[in-house]
Amino acid sequence: MLGFIAPTRSDWLPRALQQLDEVLIDHAHCEKKAAGAAVSLLFRCAEYPFLLEPLSELAGEELEHFRAVLGVLAGRGISFRRQRPSPYAGRLLRAARNFEPARLVDELLCCALIEARSCERFQILADALREPTLAEFYRRLLAAEARHHGLYVDLAAELVPRAEARARLRELAKHEAQVLSEMPALPRLHT
Amino acid sequence: MLGFIAPTRSDWLPRALQQLDEVLIDHAHCEKKAAGAAVSLLFRCAEYPFLLEPLSELAGEELEHFRAVLGVLAGRGISFRRQRPSPYAGRLLRAARNFEPARLVDELLCCALIEARSCERFQILADALREPTLAEFYRRLLAAEARHHGLYVDLAAELVPRAEARARLRELAKHEAQVLSEMPALPRLHT
Repeated sequence: MLGFIAPTRSDWLPRALQQLDEVLIDHAHCEKKAAGAAVSLLFRCAEYPFLLEPLSELAGEELEHFRAVLGVLAGRGISFRRQRPSPYAGRLLRAARNFEPARLVDELLCCALIEARSCERFQILADALREPTLAEFYRRLLAAEARHHGLYVDLAAELVPRAEARARLRELAKHEAQVLSEMPALPRLHT
Repeated sequence: MLGFIAPTRSDWLPRALQQLDEVLIDHAHCEKKAAGAAVSLLFRCAEYPFLLEPLSELAGEELEHFRAVLGVLAGRGISFRRQRPSPYAGRLLRAARNFEPARLVDELLCCALIEARSCERFQILADALREPTLAEFYRRLLAAEARHHGLYVDLAAELVPRAEARARLRELAKHEAQVLSEMPALPRLHT
């Protein structure tokens, strides 16, 4: 399913494992931002009311994941706190076209790519983590991220023909790989 | 419980019943905005992590209500659409103090007041509506709004002493009555 995204560089996992607390805090921020992005999209799609229900359900799931990650943090005695903001999502969205409905399509596809990247990273973490509980946590979440990825692509394909949405997804995936290659080497999910 | 808010003027109900479709669409927008407000607050309270879980749960419930109102609209053959934006919440928030944590306290209390006003209006609608299904829908929702009102006040009272939060709530309730008295006579929940 994730064949279209560039594989993660080999230096990401050791960095993530070395500063796992930072990655977990970042993960909580990411779930919060994912909920925020889905809720923001609700304010953009009055012209496409068929998007409202699936996006609001997705936002609700992201909020549940947010609480789940807060639970993981609490269980490990890690305090949730601000971090240096990651430029990943902002740079990714710079590729969005500036006319409608292309802009909305691109935002949905960027969200699809973020979910796909999270899914890939959760898989890498789940395979590498020695703690079975945390590995299992990531295995459960990666299934949800894969579903969210598919949902975002499906929603984009409600606005333009599916072949066009898929072609644009592949274009944006190349941009995502470029954005990722220019990211600072921070212990984050999307670096 | 709602003794501290100014009672609704007698001309509101006839206007609401006469243009019930408009009020129902506004209601959907209000639930969406309530979810948006709670999610925005999540981005403001990294210094107060004890707010994160209750606010994210509340946001999830607002999203459920949003979908419930969309269901009511669909059941009545009403299309969700944009409306002339209401200045109510924006004007209400103008009274928020501009230093922390007073600003956050005021925003929480403004949310508490919006929930209280919704609760009062839902009660008025539930008592007046002749359709038992819709009346019952509002009766169920008003219980949730009352709970959300209490939650927002409780959260404000985590940041400052409860007596101070209550006193500020009474001040802001006076401001809310003033804002309401200056609202255009639109068929909306908060006019």
